[in-house]
Amino acid sequence: MTKVAIIGAAGYTGGELIRVIKDHPNISEFFAISESNGGKRISSVHEDVLDLDGKVFDDKFNPKNVDVVFLCGGHGDSNNLMKKHGLNINEVRIIDLSQDFRHKENSNGFIYGLSEVFRSEIITAKAVANPGCFATAIQLSLAPLAKLKKLNPDIHITAITGSTGAGQKPQATTHYSWRSNNISVYKPFEHQHLKEINETLSTLSNGDIGKMLFVPVRGPFTRGIISSIHLKIEDGLDFINSYYKEFYKGCKFVHVTDSEVHLKQVINTNNAVMSIRKHDEYVHITCCIDNLLKGASGQAVQNMNLMLGLEENAGLNLKSVYF
Amino acid sequence: MTKVAIIGAAGYTGGELIRVIKDHPNISEFFAISESNGGKRISSVHEDVLDLDGKVFDDKFNPKNVDVVFLCGGHGDSNNLMKKHGLNINEVRIIDLSQDFRHKENSNGFIYGLSEVFRSEIITAKAVANPGCFATAIQLSLAPLAKLKKLNPDIHITAITGSTGAGQKPQATTHYSWRSNNISVYKPFEHQHLKEINETLSTLSNGDIGKMLFVPVRGPFTRGIISSIHLKIEDGLDFINSYYKEFYKGCKFVHVTDSEVHLKQVINTNNAVMSIRKHDEYVHITCCIDNLLKGASGQAVQNMNLMLGLEENAGLNLKSVYF
Amino acid sequence: MTKVAIIGAAGYTGGELIRVIKDHPNISEFFAISESNGGKRISSVHEDVLDLDGKVFDDKFNPKNVDVVFLCGGHGDSNNLMKKHGLNINEVRIIDLSQDFRHKENSNGFIYGLSEVFRSEIITAKAVANPGCFATAIQLSLAPLAKLKKLNPDIHITAITGSTGAGQKPQATTHYSWRSNNISVYKPFEHQHLKEINETLSTLSNGDIGKMLFVPVRGPFTRGIISSIHLKIEDGLDFINSYYKEFYKGCKFVHVTDSEVHLKQVINTNNAVMSIRKHDEYVHITCCIDNLLKGASGQAVQNMNLMLGLEENAGLNLKSVYF
Amino acid sequence: MTKVAIIGAAGYTGGELIRVIKDHPNISEFFAISESNGGKRISSVHEDVLDLDGKVFDDKFNPKNVDVVFLCGGHGDSNNLMKKHGLNINEVRIIDLSQDFRHKENSNGFIYGLSEVFRSEIITAKAVANPGCFATAIQLSLAPLAKLKKLNPDIHITAITGSTGAGQKPQATTHYSWRSNNISVYKPFEHQHLKEINETLSTLSNGDIGKMLFVPVRGPFTRGIISSIHLKIEDGLDFINSYYKEFYKGCKFVHVTDSEVHLKQVINTNNAVMSIRKHDEYVHITCCIDNLLKGASGQAVQNMNLMLGLEENAGLNLKSVYF
Repeated sequence: MTKVAIIGAAGYTGGELIRVIKDHPNISEFFAISESNGGKRISSVHEDVLDLDGKVFDDKFNPKNVDVVFLCGGHGDSNNLMKKHGLNINEVRIIDLSQDFRHKENSNGFIYGLSEVFRSEIITAKAVANPGCFATAIQLSLAPLAKLKKLNPDIHITAITGSTGAGQKPQATTHYSWRSNNISVYKPFEHQHLKEINETLSTLSNGDIGKMLFVPVRGPFTRGIISSIHLKIEDGLDFINSYYKEFYKGCKFVHVTDSEVHLKQVINTNNAVMSIRKHDEYVHITCCIDNLLKGASGQAVQNMNLMLGLEENAGLNLKSVYF
Repeated sequence: MTKVAIIGAAGYTGGELIRVIKDHPNISEFFAISESNGGKRISSVHEDVLDLDGKVFDDKFNPKNVDVVFLCGGHGDSNNLMKKHGLNINEVRIIDLSQDFRHKENSNGFIYGLSEVFRSEIITAKAVANPGCFATAIQLSLAPLAKLKKLNPDIHITAITGSTGAGQKPQATTHYSWRSNNISVYKPFEHQHLKEINETLSTLSNGDIGKMLFVPVRGPFTRGIISSIHLKIEDGLDFINSYYKEFYKGCKFVHVTDSEVHLKQVINTNNAVMSIRKHDEYVHITCCIDNLLKGASGQAVQNMNLMLGLEENAGLNLKSVYF
Repeated sequence: MTKVAIIGAAGYTGGELIRVIKDHPNISEFFAISESNGGKRISSVHEDVLDLDGKVFDDKFNPKNVDVVFLCGGHGDSNNLMKKHGLNINEVRIIDLSQDFRHKENSNGFIYGLSEVFRSEIITAKAVANPGCFATAIQLSLAPLAKLKKLNPDIHITAITGSTGAGQKPQATTHYSWRSNNISVYKPFEHQHLKEINETLSTLSNGDIGKMLFVPVRGPFTRGIISSIHLKIEDGLDFINSYYKEFYKGCKFVHVTDSEVHLKQVINTNNAVMSIRKHDEYVHITCCIDNLLKGASGQAVQNMNLMLGLEENAGLNLKSVYF
Repeated sequence: MTKVAIIGAAGYTGGELIRVIKDHPNISEFFAISESNGGKRISSVHEDVLDLDGKVFDDKFNPKNVDVVFLCGGHGDSNNLMKKHGLNINEVRIIDLSQDFRHKENSNGFIYGLSEVFRSEIITAKAVANPGCFATAIQLSLAPLAKLKKLNPDIHITAITGSTGAGQKPQATTHYSWRSNNISVYKPFEHQHLKEINETLSTLSNGDIGKMLFVPVRGPFTRGIISSIHLKIEDGLDFINSYYKEFYKGCKFVHVTDSEVHLKQVINTNNAVMSIRKHDEYVHITCCIDNLLKGASGQAVQNMNLMLGLEENAGLNLKSVYF
C-alpha cells in the first residue's frame, strides 16, 4: 500500500487531492502538510471532508515514510518547499502542481505530466510537473494535430475558466457581487500557459507550430474550463475524427464525441470531453475539463497511478455532479 | 453480486441512481428502464455518464433477473409501474422514490425508508418507500427530539430547495432567466411532505406533536436543501448536543457539528450535516443535505444496502464537489 | 437646484447613490468624496458609470456648497467623518447610512428614516439615520401590526440576503467559489439590526412587543432581501390585508399584493413588495426589497426628497432589471 | 406627446419595451398588445412592473391612435402581425424587433436600425428593422474597420450570450439545473445573425469582407453579450484607438475605453463598452452590451427617438444594476 504527503494541503488543489486520495483504494495513509494550519482539523478548512475522524494538518513529515509527495504551493515556491522538507527526486517521487518545473529550460528532472500524451515517460519518471488547467484542455485538443504535423497555421483559441482557477484568496474578480452574471476577457494573447502548450505541441510536431492567438475568459461558474479552438486544415472531418478517436483509444478519461459538448458533462470528474467539427477549411475543436481535477489534482493522481504501476483510473471513478 | 433495475431511469432521480450504481462495488449489472427512451444511449440523456460504452435504456426487463427494483416514476405512478412491469414485493425487493407509499394509510407493505431512524425495519423490509427530500432534512433534525417527546410546542421550519427539486421538465420557476439571483416562498404551511414528517415524528414521539409551521423556499442553486428549525425546549444546549451525537452515533452519513454549517459541505454526497444552538428557551437546528442524494437516490442506495446486508455505505463514498 | 456630497463614495452604498443622483432631476451637482480615491476617475471604481465625462472623486469639499451630505462610511465612522469634514446638523442636512445614529440612546438629533412610517418626522428633520436593509424589510412587514398593537406573540423571522449586503471587501463568504450555489445561516437570533427593529415597533406599538426570533441567511444572489415572518394573530386575512393596503395607501414604493412575491420583482428599484397570508391562527408576511436601494441608498434619496420637499419619488423611477 | 403600441408585449423584448416606455418623458400613452393575454394585468406577466395601476394588455388597437408600433413577435411573424393589425409603413412608423426585415432581399422598406451607424437613414425612415443582439455587438466592434476597408482578412469572433437571448419559453438549455455553472458552444460558424452582419459590414466597406468565423457560446448569466474579435491589420493601436473614438464621437451609448471591459458595466443600460488591443499583427476588440437593451428594446427606443426627432437618449438614462 502507498503512503503520500500533500504539501500545501490547505489550498484548492491540496483540498482536491485530499478528497480524491482519502478514498483511493491503493493509499493506506496520507499526510496533509500545511505550515499555517498545523494541528488544525482538516475539516475546519475543507469543511466538506466530514469523514476523517478529526484528522489534522501536520506542519512537517519524514520523506522516508512516504512513496509520493505532491507539491501544491504557489507558483515559484516549489524549490523552497523541496529544500524545506528535504525532498530529493532520487529518494521520493514528487508531483509538482505548480508551473515551476513545466518548462524545459528549468525542468530539473521533472517530466511534463500530460498523462495521455507522455504516458510512457511518466511511467518511469521520478518526478512529474503537472500541467496547467488551460494547458491541459488546449493540449489535449491539439496533440493529435501536432502528431500529424498540421499545426502550422495560426491557431485561434478562446477558453473560459471558472472562479476556482483564480485560487482560494478572495480578490476583486472572485467577489460574488462582481463575478455573478459577469464575464470578461483577461491577459489576451499573453497567458502564462502559452509557453508549456507551445513546448508540448512543438515536441509532438517535431518542429515549430503556428502562432497561438489565445483569449482567456473569466466566466461566472466555479469549476471547469471550456476551450474553443479553430485553425485551417485541409483534411476532412471523417479523417480527423477517426484520427482523434484512434489517438485517444484506450484512454479512460478522454472522450471524443460526435455530439455537442457542455461543461457540466465533466464537472467533478477527471474526464475530458471533446467534439470536432469542420467548417469550410477550418477545423473546430471544443473541449471541456474540470480545472481542479483533469486540470490539476485529478491528473496528478492519474500521474501517480502511472508512476506507481497502479490502475490508471484507481481512485478516479468519481461521481459527476452534473447539476 | 447484485443486479438491479431502475424504472424511470431518464429522470433526475433515475440519473442519480445510475451515477451511483454504475460504480457500486456489489452491483454486477443494472437495467435502466425508460419507456420513452428505450434503445437510446444512456449518455444521450445523462450526458455526463461517459463511461458506459454505449449502454442503452431498455423499455422492459424481467423482474426475475434482478434483486432490487427502484421506482423513479412521477408521484401517483408507482402502482401502475408495478403492474406494467409485473412487480410484486414478495418476489423482488422494491424501493419507491415517489410519495405513493410513504403514508401509513396507503403503505401497501412498504416500510418508510428514513435510513438512520428505521434501520432495523428497513433491514428486513421487502419494500421501502424512500422519504422526500424536505422530509429527510426535517426528520433528521427532529427525530432525536421526537424520541425525547419534546415536540409538543409549535415547530417553526424554513427550508430552502434548489432547482433540481422541481424536476427535469422545464417550467417558469426553473427558467434560468427567472431563477438566477431570485428567491421565493411557495406553498407556505401546506407542503405535501408535512404528512410524512408528521407520521414519522408522531411515531417516534409515541403521540401527537406540535403544529409544524413550514415555509418552503425556492433558492437560486441547483442541488441541496437547508432547513432551519426552532421550537421551545427547556433543556440546555449541552444535553441536546450530547443526545443528538449519541442518537446518530455510528451513522456514517449524519454529522452533528459544533460549527456553523453551509450547503456545499454536503453537495454530491449522501451526508447530512447539522448544527444545534440554543437561544433563550428556543433550540435551533440547521441541517443541510443534497436533495438528490440523501434526499432521494443516495438514501435509496443506502436502503438497498441495508436490505441486502451490504456495507451501509457501499457505493456511497462519493467525492463532494464543494465548489 | 440641489447640491449634494457623498462621503465614502467609493463603496457599495456610495456607488448606488452616485448611480441614482447623477440623473436625479433636482440635483445640479454632486461631490463624490473618497479619501483613498481622491483624484481618480469615478468610472475607475464604479466601472458601469460611463457617462460622467471623467469626473473624479474629491478628497474634501466645503459643506457650505452643498444642501445635503450622505455619510457612507463604515459602521462606527460617522462621528469621525462629521468632524473631519466639519459637518454640523444645524448647518447642513445629513443622511447617515451607517448604523451609528439609528438607536435612540445615541441618535444625536438624527431621525430614524423609515420613510413610509416616519414621513412627517423626516420632512422636518435636520438629519436622518437611514435604516438597515434587513431592518427595512422587517419593519415594513410589521409596522401595520405594530400600529394595531398585535405584536405581543413571539415573532418568527427568516430573512435571506445577497452578497452585496456583506460589502465591497472580498472575504471568504463572498468568494464566488464558496457562495455560488451555497446557502447558510449566520448570527441566528443575534443580528445587530434587531435593536433598531425593536425600537421602531415598540414605538409604533406604544409598548413592548413579543420576542423576535430572527434567523438571517446568506443566499447565492447579489442584490436583495426576502423576509418571511409569521406570528399568531386572531384577525382574519381580509381585515389584515385591508389594513395593510390602507396603511400603505399613497406610498409609491410599498406594494401589498395578493399574489406570491419573488425577489426579482424589486431588484434595481426602490420598491418593496409584500404578500400576506393566514394559516390557522398564524399570519404570514413575505416581503422583498433591493438591499442597496430601498434597503440603503434608494431610501436615502427618498428621505432626501422628503427633507427637501421634492417629489418623494424624484430620481427613483428606476428601471427594474427583472432578469 | 407620442403614443405607441407594442405588439407581442408579453414576451421578453415586449416587457423590456414596457419597462423603458412607461417612464419615457415624451410618451403619453402606450398600448401593450398581447392576443393571449388580452384583459390580463400587465403586472401578472411582467411581475416587476408594479406601478401601472392595474393597466391591462389589450388584444387589439387602432393604428390611427398611435405614432409608432413596435413588433415583438417571433421570427417569421411580422408580416402576419402587420396584416392582422392593419399596419402600413406609410401610415404609421413601425419598428420590428424580429429578423424578418433585416436583410436587403426582404427589407420591404424597412431601414436596418444600427443606430450609431445608420443614424441619418433612420432619422428619415418610415420603418426600422431592429438589429439582432449578437449582430449589434459585432457590428459596433467592426464598423470603424469596415469604414477603413480593413476587413479583408478572416475575422475570428467568439461571443457569449445570456439566457434571456433564448427567449421566454422554458427549454432544456435554459433550465436552471442545466445552465447554472455551465457553458457551451452552439451553432458554431452558422449563426443566423451572420447574414445581417455581413450585409452591414460589406455596405460600409463598399465591397466584400473576409470570412467571419463566429463561435456563439451560451453562458451562465441572464443578460448580456460579450464579443471577442480579432483579425490581422497593419495599423498600430494608437491609430485604431483614435479612429474608433472619432468614429463614435458624440454617440452617447458607445464607449471606447482604454481599460479592460466586463459585462456588468453595461447591464440594464443601453450602453456598449468596447476596448481595443493590438497583439503583433492582430487587432483584438472586446465589446459588451445588454442583449435586451442595446441588443433589442433599448436600441428600438433609441431608433424611435431618432425617427421622431426626440433626444436620442430620451427615456434611456437607465440605472445600471452593476451587481
